Amino acid sequence: MSTARSEGMNYAPKGKPNPVVKPGEFEFSAVALDHGHIYGMCNGLIEAGATLRYVYDPDPAKVEAFKKAFPDVVVAQSEQQVLQDERTKLVASAAVTNLRCALGLRAMNAGKDYFTDKAPLTTLDQLAAAKDTVTKTGKKYMVYYSERLHVEGAIYAGQLIEQGAVGRVLQVLGTGPHRLSAKNRPPWFFIKEQYGGILCDIGSHQIEQFLYYTGAKDAGITYSRIANYAHPEYPELDDFGEAMLLADNGATNYFRVDWFTPDGLGTWGDGRLTILGTEGFIEVRKYHDIASGQTGGNHVYWANGEGEYYFDATGKVGCPYFGQLILDCVNRTENAMTQAHAFKAAELCVTAQLKAETIRGSAAV
Amino acid sequence: MSTARSEGMNYAPKGKPNPVVKPGEFEFSAVALDHGHIYGMCNGLIEAGATLRYVYDPDPAKVEAFKKAFPDVVVAQSEQQVLQDERTKLVASAAVTNLRCALGLRAMNAGKDYFTDKAPLTTLDQLAAAKDTVTKTGKKYMVYYSERLHVEGAIYAGQLIEQGAVGRVLQVLGTGPHRLSAKNRPPWFFIKEQYGGILCDIGSHQIEQFLYYTGAKDAGITYSRIANYAHPEYPELDDFGEAMLLADNGATNYFRVDWFTPDGLGTWGDGRLTILGTEGFIEVRKYHDIASGQTGGNHVYWANGEGEYYFDATGKVGCPYFGQLILDCVNRTENAMTQAHAFKAAELCVTAQLKAETIRGSAAV
Repeated sequence: MSTARSEGMNYAPKGKPNPVVKPGEFEFSAVALDHGHIYGMCNGLIEAGATLRYVYDPDPAKVEAFKKAFPDVVVAQSEQQVLQDERTKLVASAAVTNLRCALGLRAMNAGKDYFTDKAPLTTLDQLAAAKDTVTKTGKKYMVYYSERLHVEGAIYAGQLIEQGAVGRVLQVLGTGPHRLSAKNRPPWFFIKEQYGGILCDIGSHQIEQFLYYTGAKDAGITYSRIANYAHPEYPELDDFGEAMLLADNGATNYFRVDWFTPDGLGTWGDGRLTILGTEGFIEVRKYHDIASGQTGGNHVYWANGEGEYYFDATGKVGCPYFGQLILDCVNRTENAMTQAHAFKAAELCVTAQLKAETIRGSAAV
Repeated sequence: MSTARSEGMNYAPKGKPNPVVKPGEFEFSAVALDHGHIYGMCNGLIEAGATLRYVYDPDPAKVEAFKKAFPDVVVAQSEQQVLQDERTKLVASAAVTNLRCALGLRAMNAGKDYFTDKAPLTTLDQLAAAKDTVTKTGKKYMVYYSERLHVEGAIYAGQLIEQGAVGRVLQVLGTGPHRLSAKNRPPWFFIKEQYGGILCDIGSHQIEQFLYYTGAKDAGITYSRIANYAHPEYPELDDFGEAMLLADNGATNYFRVDWFTPDGLGTWGDGRLTILGTEGFIEVRKYHDIASGQTGGNHVYWANGEGEYYFDATGKVGCPYFGQLILDCVNRTENAMTQAHAFKAAELCVTAQLKAETIRGSAAV
């Protein structure tokens, strides 16, 4: 299981274990293993003290692979078996993107909190249904925005901002290149209705982190566009997307996402995050420091009035999201992430995709 | 004269001398020393073999400082004296931005080629006049887009593209933070009519490099905006600007420019250039490699199908623009830069500024 070579497909970063509950105190189950992010989601929860109870997926091969990574899990015979299990408090899932909301509705209606891979949904109708069901059931619809929540360098950037290291945040600039590895992708990955488009899919990380680092409650899509520059064999693939946003507090965002990571790069994507503040700036090289001789990610660079700094956050910061999520489920609090924030990011990534212009000459339909 | 601490005010990078003419074969004069870029412009020409003949500026203090850097220069008593000098083939100047075009018209009408600091002009009317005068006189209106032309790392990036190192260029992403050093700036620097606005001023570098690296002949401003986030004492200063462009060949550009370089950074701006291609990408850390322990700039990183690479271009690549410009003046060729390219970048930087929305809550007028 290499996080260096295969984006997402088996993404399961090892964090700093920091259990917030005792074994058996908080149990969850995994349903729908269509995206490898489910491994990172389960790892994160288990490191924070949660107990993995059931797994269910209609594909026995996916279940078998999952059981190798989590040998203590019990294989359920149906989704219904999981949803009817009283000990399961939360359902974690990484379904095909456009099916994530429907599964979430079933989970919440069965009295479970829901924790889905990003993007959490693909249409505004799904968003409306998710909001209604959250209101009706009082359950949570939480999201694994892994490129912030499961990256210690990104966590550390948030801590620097909280400490006032760079003053007021004016802009978040993110680039999220990914390796396509087309031959290892399932068919749904190339069907726009199913994966949601690049701005909805990997753009969701970018929009979530923008809202987070700027402390914005709302934002608008200033402009967005997509292209299929170089993959005519997958006419519904967006291999490039970019957007500008403006937050309610005046902060701005630009991000670019793409599927052009070349094979010679030592990781699946040279993801970067640059935060411009009134008193300084932060750059996070999330997964890699190109041609530096260093391996691994979480490289945090910043400068302010006092000087310039570097910190390797790997193994030093942890990913508090998972423990906070467990405690939020137990205590009905919102410390990991508010429901409003999770839904706002979802709304904006869907809207960015809906509003996107297609670059002329592109193969995109 | 520190290039590390004071952007532009005394910017005069030392290149790799490579004379293309013998001493006295090509003479030029400097008129209007309002921006320190004039030092870099003269250095570049002299290193390429040109002979500096006259200097003229109405301010004796500026002339005195200039003569210290270039002791052999002859101080002219008037602009007219320079324009009437038969041996002066080219007039180099760094006037107040909105006066650059008028000076250029006078120089060209006097039979001289003109080499101005960027931005070369501030209005579309000026551009029309410049184009007319170029046509009428057959003279050149060339521009010192220093952040590409006088940065060996940026030159090397162009060579990599020519060699096919990253395939077809899809996007150019540039960030151009600058240190404000407000107390050392002249009054015109804060008057929008005079400096032209941030997208016209330091944005011009960004747009020129976009056209260059993508090989585009034309482009449109997709969206642009400006702000004065944190300098209400200078209400006409744009301290932030950003824009998205789309080229005629389908390539895209995003750039951000700002005046927020913090005092603790070891140089005037952590300018970055990222070029995304179908087969790889290039990152140039133009002036600095933050917290790396390395001094100086021209750090070129790239990755493609074969691997990831680093090259320190300092002193190894040279800046061929200056020698090509001299030979273009002598031979009436266009190898350094076509007139169409110089004017297209000028048109787009003025247009980006004209179309820019102002971020609400901003102090910008």
